Amino acid sequence: MSSKLRILPLGGLGEIGKNMTVLEYEEAIIVVDAGIMFPENDMLGIDLIIPDYNYLLDKTEKVVAVLITHGHEDHVGALGHLMAHLDAPIYATRLTNGLIAGKLREAKLFHEVELRNIQAGDVFQVGPFTIEPFHVAHSIPDGVGFGITTPVGLVVHTGDYKFDHTPVDGWPPDFAKLAEFSQRGVLCLLADSTNAERPGWTQSETVITQAFDELFRNAEGRIIVATFASLISRIQQVINAAAQYNRKVAVTGRSMRENVRIARELGYLDVPDGILVEIEQINKLPAHRVVILATGSQGEPTAALGRLAHGRHRHLTIEEGDTVVISAHPIPGNEEMIYRIINRLIQRGAHVLYEGIANVHVSGHASREEMKLLINLLRPRFFVPIHGELRHLKAHGRLAQEMGIPQQNIAVVENGRVLELDGHSLTIGPRIPGGYVFVDGSGVGDIGPAVMRDRERLADSGFFVAVVQLDEQGGLAGKPEFISRGFVYLDAAGELLQGAEETIERAIAAATVVAGANGSGRAELNDRVQDALARYLYAETGRRPMVYTVVK
Amino acid sequence: MSSKLRILPLGGLGEIGKNMTVLEYEEAIIVVDAGIMFPENDMLGIDLIIPDYNYLLDKTEKVVAVLITHGHEDHVGALGHLMAHLDAPIYATRLTNGLIAGKLREAKLFHEVELRNIQAGDVFQVGPFTIEPFHVAHSIPDGVGFGITTPVGLVVHTGDYKFDHTPVDGWPPDFAKLAEFSQRGVLCLLADSTNAERPGWTQSETVITQAFDELFRNAEGRIIVATFASLISRIQQVINAAAQYNRKVAVTGRSMRENVRIARELGYLDVPDGILVEIEQINKLPAHRVVILATGSQGEPTAALGRLAHGRHRHLTIEEGDTVVISAHPIPGNEEMIYRIINRLIQRGAHVLYEGIANVHVSGHASREEMKLLINLLRPRFFVPIHGELRHLKAHGRLAQEMGIPQQNIAVVENGRVLELDGHSLTIGPRIPGGYVFVDGSGVGDIGPAVMRDRERLADSGFFVAVVQLDEQGGLAGKPEFISRGFVYLDAAGELLQGAEETIERAIAAATVVAGANGSGRAELNDRVQDALARYLYAETGRRPMVYTVVK
Repeated sequence: MSSKLRILPLGGLGEIGKNMTVLEYEEAIIVVDAGIMFPENDMLGIDLIIPDYNYLLDKTEKVVAVLITHGHEDHVGALGHLMAHLDAPIYATRLTNGLIAGKLREAKLFHEVELRNIQAGDVFQVGPFTIEPFHVAHSIPDGVGFGITTPVGLVVHTGDYKFDHTPVDGWPPDFAKLAEFSQRGVLCLLADSTNAERPGWTQSETVITQAFDELFRNAEGRIIVATFASLISRIQQVINAAAQYNRKVAVTGRSMRENVRIARELGYLDVPDGILVEIEQINKLPAHRVVILATGSQGEPTAALGRLAHGRHRHLTIEEGDTVVISAHPIPGNEEMIYRIINRLIQRGAHVLYEGIANVHVSGHASREEMKLLINLLRPRFFVPIHGELRHLKAHGRLAQEMGIPQQNIAVVENGRVLELDGHSLTIGPRIPGGYVFVDGSGVGDIGPAVMRDRERLADSGFFVAVVQLDEQGGLAGKPEFISRGFVYLDAAGELLQGAEETIERAIAAATVVAGANGSGRAELNDRVQDALARYLYAETGRRPMVYTVVK
Repeated sequence: MSSKLRILPLGGLGEIGKNMTVLEYEEAIIVVDAGIMFPENDMLGIDLIIPDYNYLLDKTEKVVAVLITHGHEDHVGALGHLMAHLDAPIYATRLTNGLIAGKLREAKLFHEVELRNIQAGDVFQVGPFTIEPFHVAHSIPDGVGFGITTPVGLVVHTGDYKFDHTPVDGWPPDFAKLAEFSQRGVLCLLADSTNAERPGWTQSETVITQAFDELFRNAEGRIIVATFASLISRIQQVINAAAQYNRKVAVTGRSMRENVRIARELGYLDVPDGILVEIEQINKLPAHRVVILATGSQGEPTAALGRLAHGRHRHLTIEEGDTVVISAHPIPGNEEMIYRIINRLIQRGAHVLYEGIANVHVSGHASREEMKLLINLLRPRFFVPIHGELRHLKAHGRLAQEMGIPQQNIAVVENGRVLELDGHSLTIGPRIPGGYVFVDGSGVGDIGPAVMRDRERLADSGFFVAVVQLDEQGGLAGKPEFISRGFVYLDAAGELLQGAEETIERAIAAATVVAGANGSGRAELNDRVQDALARYLYAETGRRPMVYTVVK
């Protein structure tokens, strides 16, 4: 009996196989991507989420390669964690490796990890796998997908892609390579599902060039463009328009400054001499000679645009006549914060353009008609939608079925589900234990549901601690001390605290009568006082803070 | 010199004049609507937001009428608070008064407040104002706008409206009345801005009838429709489709059951005999004979649909073959929760239809072409966009300008800004102090920025309290007691707590040497221990819980 290929999508919560995919054949494993996810609004205090790669930890010596499709955070952000466990080299294109190098330096792993440069069109061998990176168009340059010839057949992993015939870097996707894969016969396609609910064909990045051209031609004041720090092609478009309309460009926001530096050094960003100026110098220039590129397009209050909206930017103030362009799509969950920032900017007198009212952003992901083209180009035997929430995978799976792939050859699965492939069949295995891993401060994976629930309760109503000192007779010795935050405004709560004191006094008096003063009854006494106090506070305020007493 | 009319939009944060508008002329005030807003994701622990009607509190005897446009929460929800202060009667249509009665009963104000039934077409006098309610189409029946003839001229307030020519209740908006207003001359128009960024004309509710028809004709299993509890016309459409396709209807979710009862009693909901069944009986019927109407269309985890998605509904379990329809638009900020519920429902085997992939919802508000028609019908001299965030008001204001209203006759203002009108000019006055008011538990307005910031910190990293007992020599007497929640998982934090103990010990030893043991130095000692502990915990975990020590 021949061996099977195992495919295991991992990732943050929600999006499936977005952040990491594991391919395993006998004694060899390759990993495709290792990215992070950002926490949802109700994951309180969590900094970021990394894929749960526990599956790999007792098999690290089997990992022969880490392949990276492109340099976005949700594909490379977890390398600083993952590579602490692996000896395998990372294979990525030059720009991607440039961005990865920064992450590894931050994680103090730069000297431990081998970065191998590859380029679209290469063919190389790792273990039993032949890897063929092929060029895709996406919202960052130098992105690739991978053709992976395994002992059971050819697997194609698209990475993030769109079929943009006129991308900003002039390098359209490699249709010929896809056709060639098709001729050889594709066993299994793993394809990006992000926009599986969007009809039609995603607009080309060129649309933005036209929109920017009109904007730059007509704007009389300063232009401020907020976008993702990693959206190098959008940054290029801003620089092009600035050059054409004789404006200087300043970049604000640490991550964007860093990405611009790397992309420029590696030749992926074409910046005419003298066009970039420091943000400190921008106020010396006339308004119509200025463009500012800023981070914060997702409404993050501490990023550059957020600071501008709240009047807290060190070098800039929004003025009447400024035009602000938010050239990004709101990630679900961020809408409220983005709209708040838009309202604030309008309040300060800016004219604000954003998706929904102006043509200032296009998606980096394929829409349904492109997905159909991909499937028809490759004609895969098996189809696994990845990169998306379950609703997207489901829609993508249905689309594949409409394209003629039999339902039993389509695997709509969640992260942690092992797929097994031989040349003829696809089986969906059990779900491996574990899920995503929360990173909070320096802690990785130590925050679980119990701590999260406590944070929810604290966020809702705060806490209230009473320290109660008993005298030798078991009565109150002096006034209890109260510590409370997030519950009521203490300065105005004198009466409430007075009542809390009386409640404690009564509870102790009653308990002393029932249980006797000291000794083994102390824990019970503590519980009684705590219960009485919690009941009192709820009756008075209708709120349920976390209540604790220390009876000494 | 003649007196001026003052117009004051109030409301929750974000949406302007959505929840309440005050009109004042000399010694008379009328209030239009008194609704609530729901808190944004980062307003931790807040139950709801009511308009800040502080402006009225020293003028309550001037208030001659409270006019209500329709029965949605964001227009009536604050009456239970407001009417505790006012003696004026409420004027509303029958259905609206039916819904208001419930609120007043909850607030124990039902016997204190006079509810006067009005209907579209009425003309009545309150103080110096002549009020003419006119019929509008919206997503709840019996909605009106108000023509208000004031001593300075005719003011028209649209309420929430759309120009639906084929509404579910068969009662299109009263164009003739608007034309009549126009002939008399409209001084000022206050108009709904919710969809000011949406091009075109909002689809008629009839579109949903067609979509439901197709759905009911084809669905083989149970159909579960989630929508707003107050969307009576959508509920009517479900009942109609159920009747046509021979299905029984069960309603789950307290607020929807209540609204169905009231609307039916008052004759606004046409329910064929025998079609409604109790939710407990639904499992006895064959799947293709069942429709379930549910609350929870905004992703609320504790509403009916949320409980179904998480497998926690008392009477129902989602099964393979169920079709779930989310017939609602996500309110910004709720997207994440709604998508989470959709993914969970898919995971349980349901087929889920929702806005974006299916035609299962239309807006209840006018789009841009309708806004243009309104302005051209009324030809107002002054224009005040209301009901929307600043971005919507701005877009609506620009639209009015494009329609020929001079810029100086358009007032795009925020809540709390007093507008003054005579027959010839509109002036924007200063902003009155105050803003929105948070309701949390039984507290109204007692939660301010300080408590909110504390809740944010607690949500982020929890708290850590150390109770330290000193002996007579000023050294540690026994082990410190720790209380901590939301910070780390304490059961696995033995080493961290050991280190905290040592840190406290060192801090006390050092402080005793410097400051002497007892007495006046106690507060300073407490601060030193607290600082040392906070530094230690941050160094160990990278987190910043709120740290407090009690040194006794």
